Amino acid sequence: MKSSKPTSLKDIAEILGVSIPTVSRALKNSPEISLELCAKTQKLAKEMNYRPNPFALSLRKNAPRTIGVIVPDIVTHFFASILNGIENTAIANGYFIIITTSHESYEYEKRNIQNLVNMRVEGIIASLSQETTDYSHLSALKDINMPLLLFDRVCLTEQFSSVVADGAYSAQTATQHLLDNGSRRVAFIGGANHLDIVKKRKHGYLEALRNNRIPIEKELVICRKLDFEEGKIATETLLALPNPPDAILAMNDTLAFAAMEVIKSHGLRIPEDIAIIGYTDEQHANYVEPKLSAISHQTYKMGESACQLLIEQIKGEKTVKQVVVPTHLQIRESSIKTTYSSKRPSL
Amino acid sequence: MKSSKPTSLKDIAEILGVSIPTVSRALKNSPEISLELCAKTQKLAKEMNYRPNPFALSLRKNAPRTIGVIVPDIVTHFFASILNGIENTAIANGYFIIITTSHESYEYEKRNIQNLVNMRVEGIIASLSQETTDYSHLSALKDINMPLLLFDRVCLTEQFSSVVADGAYSAQTATQHLLDNGSRRVAFIGGANHLDIVKKRKHGYLEALRNNRIPIEKELVICRKLDFEEGKIATETLLALPNPPDAILAMNDTLAFAAMEVIKSHGLRIPEDIAIIGYTDEQHANYVEPKLSAISHQTYKMGESACQLLIEQIKGEKTVKQVVVPTHLQIRESSIKTTYSSKRPSL
Repeated sequence: MKSSKPTSLKDIAEILGVSIPTVSRALKNSPEISLELCAKTQKLAKEMNYRPNPFALSLRKNAPRTIGVIVPDIVTHFFASILNGIENTAIANGYFIIITTSHESYEYEKRNIQNLVNMRVEGIIASLSQETTDYSHLSALKDINMPLLLFDRVCLTEQFSSVVADGAYSAQTATQHLLDNGSRRVAFIGGANHLDIVKKRKHGYLEALRNNRIPIEKELVICRKLDFEEGKIATETLLALPNPPDAILAMNDTLAFAAMEVIKSHGLRIPEDIAIIGYTDEQHANYVEPKLSAISHQTYKMGESACQLLIEQIKGEKTVKQVVVPTHLQIRESSIKTTYSSKRPSL
Repeated sequence: MKSSKPTSLKDIAEILGVSIPTVSRALKNSPEISLELCAKTQKLAKEMNYRPNPFALSLRKNAPRTIGVIVPDIVTHFFASILNGIENTAIANGYFIIITTSHESYEYEKRNIQNLVNMRVEGIIASLSQETTDYSHLSALKDINMPLLLFDRVCLTEQFSSVVADGAYSAQTATQHLLDNGSRRVAFIGGANHLDIVKKRKHGYLEALRNNRIPIEKELVICRKLDFEEGKIATETLLALPNPPDAILAMNDTLAFAAMEVIKSHGLRIPEDIAIIGYTDEQHANYVEPKLSAISHQTYKMGESACQLLIEQIKGEKTVKQVVVPTHLQIRESSIKTTYSSKRPSL
C-alpha cells in the first residue's frame, strides 16, 4: 500500500537521458530546447504525475515559520480551547501552527516529536499523553536546542518551562465546597497516578479532608485512566461499596459525565444522593441535568501564555519559568444537597 | 515583536569570516581545524543560540511524508471525529497528518493552503470555512498538480473528489419523522445559504413538506450562520412569530443545543410544545434533557474515506469521485410528541 515518492525532475531526466536543468527548461518551453524535446518532456511529466513546486527556487524563503503542537486529543473541549489561544498568539507573532495528536499514546508522541523536528519547526508546545512515563524523547530536544514548552500535563519542570492550572488549590476548594454543602463522604476519581495533574489534584482533595479532620478511606480514591469507560467502571466500583460515597470529585469532564450517567442509571439522585463536581470549561456543563458544578479553567489564557513563553524561548530566553493560571469553582446545581441547611456539617 | 530567523551556519561563517564548511567542521571538532577556531566557533554558536539540525545531511530523506488537513474548527465533535478517521488511515499508509484550522475564516483558509503547499505536503484534505465563496485558492492547487480532497463542506465537485453525507435524504427523513409524530409546523434553522450542505439539507426539508402537501412558509426557514449565538437569535425569531412552529430541524449540533436553550428559557416544553431534531454524533445528545433525536453521521468512516481517496490521488488516480456516506436518524426523546397517538397527522 506504500505509495511511491512524488516524481522529481531527476526522475524525468533519467528516463529521457538528459540533464535536470534541461528538463526544467523543457517544461518551461525554453527557446534553448528543441520543440520536440519540450513536447516529449511535458508529455512524460504529465504521465508520471509530475508536480512542479512553484516555490522550488526559494523554498526556504517561502516556508512558513512554524510551531508544532502535540495534544493528547482534540475531541476534548479543554484542549481544543487551549489550541485556540495558542494559535491566535502564534499568528499575531508571524508563526503558523501545526497541530498533531498523540491519541494518548507514548509511541505516537515520540513519533510526532521526531516528525516535527524533521519538519524544522522552531519550537514545540506539548501536553503529555497518559502513557508517557519515559521522558528521554523530550530531554533529547534540549540537546539539539529545540525550545519546548509543556502545558497541563507536564514533566521535568526544572528543565522545561510550563503552563499549568492551580491543581491542588482547585481540588481543595472543590472538596471543601462539597463538605460545606451537605456531603460527608467525598470520593475522588482521577487518572493514572504518575501524571503530575493527578498528583496535584489528589493532594488538594486529601488536604481538604485533613483540614476537616475526616479520616481518609483508600477505597474512595480511584485513579485509573482519563477515559469515559474507565470513569463508568470507577463509579460502579464506588456505588458497590458497602458504604458508598455521598459525593464525587471527578478530575476531568469526561469522568464527570461518565459518573453522572452511572449514578442516574442506578436510580440515584444528583445531588441529593450523590453530589458531584467536575473539571470542565464545557458549555455542556450547562446542558446536563442537573447542571454540573465544575472547576473552570481559563483555557484560552493557558494557550496564550504557553505560546508567549515558547516564542520568548525561540528568541533566546533561557530562564525556565512555570506559569500557574488560576481556576475558579463554578457552582451550578450538582454540588449542593438541597435537603441540607447548615453551612457546615458537624463531623 | 517579530523574532529573528534562527541562526544558520552561514550567519556564523559571515561573522568569523570563514567558509560554511569550516564552521561545520569546527563545530564537530574536526582535526582539520585549529583548536582555537573550534573553540571560538563553538562559543559564538552558543551565544547566537545556534540550533544544529541532527538531520541536516539527509533532511529530505528524514522529512516525514505529510498530508495537510484544514478544518473550520476543532471544537466541534464532528470535525474532531473525522480527523481521527483521517489520521488513522494516514498512519497506516505511512503518512503524517498536520492539522490546521481556518477558524471559519476565508483568509485563514487561503493562508493555510499556501503554508501547507510551502511545507511540501503531498496532498490536502479540506472542509470549507463558512465564509468561503471564492474558490480560486483551491483551483490553484489543480494548476500545480497538488491533490485536494474536500469533505462535508465541498465545492467544485466536478474538479475535486469529495466525501459528503446524504444531506438531502437525511433532512427529508428527519422532517418526515417529525410530521409522523405529531408536529405540523416544522421550522428549519441552517447556516449560510451558499454552503452546499445547507442547500442540500434545506432541499430535503422542503421535499418532505411538498410530499406531505404542506404549504411552505418562508418565515419558518432561517439560514444565517452555524454558530451558537446565531442559533439562539434564529430560535428567538421563530418563537416571536404570530404563529410559531411546533418543531425545529436544526442543521447542526451547535444550532440544536442553542435552540433547546432558548425554548427552555421561554418555559416551553420539548417535545410537547416544540419538538426538535439536530444533526450530531455527539455523546452530548444523550446528556441533554430531553435526550436529543438527531441525524447521526458516520464521522470516522467519512475521515477514512477522505484519506483513502486522497492517497489514491497521490498515487496518480485521476478520476474525480464523490463518496456519499449514509447517515441515520437516531430517535431519542426530543422528536416525538407524547400526547400524539396517530402515526400520521391528518393535514
